[in-house]
Amino acid sequence: MVATLLSARDVEFLLYDWLQAAELPQRARFSTHSRETFDALLAMCADLAASEFAPLNRLLDDQEPRFDGERVHQPEPVRRALQAFTDAGLLGLALPPKLGGEPVPAVVRTACLAWFQAANIALAAYPFLTIANMNLLLAHASEDQVQTWVAPMAAGRFFGTMCLSEPGAGSSLADITTKAVPDAATGHRVFGNKMWISGGEHDLAENIVHLVLARIVGAPAGVKGLSLFIVPKFLLDEQGNVADRNDVTLAGLNHKMGYRGTVNALLNFGEGKHLPHGSPGAVAHLVGQPNRGLEYMFHMMNEARIGVGAGAAALGYTAYLKALAYARERIQGRPFGNRTAAPTAIIQHPDVRRMLLAQKAYAEGGLALVLYCARLVDEANSALSPADREQADLLLDVLTPIAKAWPSQWCLAGTDLAIQVHGGYGYTRDHDVEQHYRDNRLNLIHEGTNGIQALDLLGRKVLGDRGIGLRALFETVQTCIAAANAGGGEGAELADQLAHTWRHLMEVTDQLIAPGETAATLALASFYLEAVGHAVVAWIWLAQFLATDRRPGDFYEGKRAACRYFHRYELPRVTWRLELVASGDRTLLEVVDAQF
Amino acid sequence: MVATLLSARDVEFLLYDWLQAAELPQRARFSTHSRETFDALLAMCADLAASEFAPLNRLLDDQEPRFDGERVHQPEPVRRALQAFTDAGLLGLALPPKLGGEPVPAVVRTACLAWFQAANIALAAYPFLTIANMNLLLAHASEDQVQTWVAPMAAGRFFGTMCLSEPGAGSSLADITTKAVPDAATGHRVFGNKMWISGGEHDLAENIVHLVLARIVGAPAGVKGLSLFIVPKFLLDEQGNVADRNDVTLAGLNHKMGYRGTVNALLNFGEGKHLPHGSPGAVAHLVGQPNRGLEYMFHMMNEARIGVGAGAAALGYTAYLKALAYARERIQGRPFGNRTAAPTAIIQHPDVRRMLLAQKAYAEGGLALVLYCARLVDEANSALSPADREQADLLLDVLTPIAKAWPSQWCLAGTDLAIQVHGGYGYTRDHDVEQHYRDNRLNLIHEGTNGIQALDLLGRKVLGDRGIGLRALFETVQTCIAAANAGGGEGAELADQLAHTWRHLMEVTDQLIAPGETAATLALASFYLEAVGHAVVAWIWLAQFLATDRRPGDFYEGKRAACRYFHRYELPRVTWRLELVASGDRTLLEVVDAQF
Repeated sequence: MVATLLSARDVEFLLYDWLQAAELPQRARFSTHSRETFDALLAMCADLAASEFAPLNRLLDDQEPRFDGERVHQPEPVRRALQAFTDAGLLGLALPPKLGGEPVPAVVRTACLAWFQAANIALAAYPFLTIANMNLLLAHASEDQVQTWVAPMAAGRFFGTMCLSEPGAGSSLADITTKAVPDAATGHRVFGNKMWISGGEHDLAENIVHLVLARIVGAPAGVKGLSLFIVPKFLLDEQGNVADRNDVTLAGLNHKMGYRGTVNALLNFGEGKHLPHGSPGAVAHLVGQPNRGLEYMFHMMNEARIGVGAGAAALGYTAYLKALAYARERIQGRPFGNRTAAPTAIIQHPDVRRMLLAQKAYAEGGLALVLYCARLVDEANSALSPADREQADLLLDVLTPIAKAWPSQWCLAGTDLAIQVHGGYGYTRDHDVEQHYRDNRLNLIHEGTNGIQALDLLGRKVLGDRGIGLRALFETVQTCIAAANAGGGEGAELADQLAHTWRHLMEVTDQLIAPGETAATLALASFYLEAVGHAVVAWIWLAQFLATDRRPGDFYEGKRAACRYFHRYELPRVTWRLELVASGDRTLLEVVDAQF
Repeated sequence: MVATLLSARDVEFLLYDWLQAAELPQRARFSTHSRETFDALLAMCADLAASEFAPLNRLLDDQEPRFDGERVHQPEPVRRALQAFTDAGLLGLALPPKLGGEPVPAVVRTACLAWFQAANIALAAYPFLTIANMNLLLAHASEDQVQTWVAPMAAGRFFGTMCLSEPGAGSSLADITTKAVPDAATGHRVFGNKMWISGGEHDLAENIVHLVLARIVGAPAGVKGLSLFIVPKFLLDEQGNVADRNDVTLAGLNHKMGYRGTVNALLNFGEGKHLPHGSPGAVAHLVGQPNRGLEYMFHMMNEARIGVGAGAAALGYTAYLKALAYARERIQGRPFGNRTAAPTAIIQHPDVRRMLLAQKAYAEGGLALVLYCARLVDEANSALSPADREQADLLLDVLTPIAKAWPSQWCLAGTDLAIQVHGGYGYTRDHDVEQHYRDNRLNLIHEGTNGIQALDLLGRKVLGDRGIGLRALFETVQTCIAAANAGGGEGAELADQLAHTWRHLMEVTDQLIAPGETAATLALASFYLEAVGHAVVAWIWLAQFLATDRRPGDFYEGKRAACRYFHRYELPRVTWRLELVASGDRTLLEVVDAQF
């Protein structure tokens, strides 16, 4: 079962042969760890994901959460699986020593959690949201708030959510209308409606800790008037035990295409159904400074975006391994030109290999990309020099929209190919891949649609800082290309084409940065994001090629074949997109509503 | 409601302004018709699809067919909707005069039926399969068989199926193992298992007429030993009324990602659960000559493939119109560079327009492509000269795999964009688009996967006849390009790029046809299919551009904008695919199983 979630061999290759994760324990922050503790943790995650999470994957899809007007019902085994996750200490992988933690490097954590995303992404959402919630509070909340809220989350007693979107404010957070009214007795009271709240209501934990973006009355309009609040489902008594209901009520559940096992709620804050301390309004505790809520959220959102990419890669990965297993056992057709031969496994057909190689290139490339970004998170947190830290921040900034968008798009495309390899069987619910597709489809939408990522990359990260981050990335790519050239052989050949594409990319980028009509440039942002994404992953593949270090054996040959595939069959997709962006074509600006 | 299925204005444009369907009644075959009868029929279909089929679309998805071990249950309203279809005479649109029909041209029929595909493709499958079944029998069955089986199907009393696939024989029909044993009393008895049988079991009609491919004992191996049989669910008494059960039993239903309203069955023939005439074996009536079954099936399959393309286009079309309506009413964000402006409808954002223009180009382009092919069917049946008829056959032959594969791929991509335009809402089952996506996903698989279409196009249609069909198509494209050049202006500019791409396509094709390693060429067939598909649809768009005849007004401006979009944003996808095919890259041949 483990064998069809991720490849442990590949995870090991990426972490150690490529990203040198075994060296991290030399740094003070990770000094209690070693390659042995990492390996034990990874092996435990692989086992637990396979034994506790994967068996519930179809069940959670079939029996989606049901609201009877009073409470939300979910299949009973969900509790046991979540308890196993908690019992294994996995909620606390990022906890600081003051809360009893021994922080595991982000690159190892990301790999650990990917096993659960591959096994059951909808179930994994509960602990993942809780972890993101804790990380945000650890960074921005008071000591007191950390003790009150983070400690019980780390123990698995409370679960967390993120409440940003509203019915009229999804991509446009500037339009959030939920308001916070100062209240002498309790701090603040919050009033408003929040939508798309994953984990927004359930009884899987004693309490739910909502992190809510709201506007304090009198605060400025737009994103600079948003503050962040802790709004629990239940108030706590003086011992920190759950007591009265807060004024937070479930207005309804969303019924989704996939990801069905994760409750997705519309929440009403302060509608007066409950009266905490005798009056309406959801009791809320301000986190940090007023009006800095979005900034705090973005701290979480960048990690969340890498997490979305990791989820997309993990789903693409398990779908690939299942398609591969199917292609090896399914007998159909004959080798080309030999009608009297015995029927063959479909993996022998070149068009099936095309689909499998594409899936391999997308899934392993996507996982490598998000692990690379997680490694940058570690670098930003633990690098030995300020310059290294700054460099890591710079790269992370420009890579984050790509780490979210690229796996969302291409590991979804890989999941689609997994259906196609299965033929009619893949279209049935007797096989996993159609669910993986439906689950994975969300990743293009949540945590900022890919269109938003495109504007983030081109508008904020490239035009906004005049290409400094991209140039830092270009230098990193150049270093890899130089190493490939120095090694000669096929690596040098592949590097040649990559160098050509990156020069083109930088030329076009320089042209875009030069004074011009920004609106016209940004209209083509999605093509730019796609071009940069493929150029980045082609580099990630070359880096993997080099990390195989010319070793013989099927695993390394396979890595090199996937790199070859990506460079020959995928990299050519970059050129026309760059040419389109460079052309400044105005079709999208000039077409008017009535012409559709 | 009609307004979100297809655009009646566009259907009118395609049929009359472009394909000159109003001239068809001048031909003897269609002489009882006129533009007025076509228009009345089209309007009735639009209304009926909207009033009877569309309201059941979500219901059939929610309440999929259920087998209780005895019979298959479906929601009750299904009957009424099918009855309305029958009562409107729509089963008989292709019937010859001898059965009381007044054949409607294929191009008009295809447009008529597209309304039902857009409204409820799973429900439409029942009459569509029955129509395909009738057409096959009309072409190849005896007078007697036609009277016995086709007449009650035309009256809606019997429904039809196509039974080709088996658990071990899907793409590889050569491996069909179902056998037919001659039986002096009844003709033949059939024994075997058939899989993926749409409409295979239900009680929506008095009887089900299965058309079954089976191998008569002693027949050759491979596809040349397959014969076609009529195998009814119920035997008929001497008056032609249903009597005893035949030996055909339901082994189980498939539960699918989409298209859930269409029963999809595993059928056991001759397992002895029923004993017709006192002995086991499904009573079967041979159609035409022994061992020519696949040839007869292919007669149907070519039309079925165009029908699959039409279904994919219709689903992409309705998804587009729903995304368009949503984008016009959903308020979110502000115009670029104006943070203090009032929030705007999302159709004002260039990236949303990109997605809408792509959807428009795919949906209208896909519908245009299948209508063009249907018009060729009419030409093949009614052209005034044998040369015109031969030319139509030649074009139809080469275009059929494209008419199946291109809309399956790109109108599905459009349906995906419709989800994306809706954002989180599109991912919920409160909106139609996620179901349209799931339904549309089947089209890449059934009636020959797109991989099979690629081999059909490159292997059989191009290499097989040494490019004659493609050259005929090239000449047709050249005629369009010449007309565009003669007209000057933007049309000539667009034609220029198209001419360049087609020259490239023909050069590469010549290279492929030249003696070489066929296995290596065919390994890249999918890229060739995609390249030709986009080159064909770019031509179809230029033809539409010209058909607007420089007329002013939003509708025509919109057509020209979509053509511009397709040529600037889609046509560039052809070049690198052709270069890849021309390179003869061997990566797919050289990678071995163990390297995955």
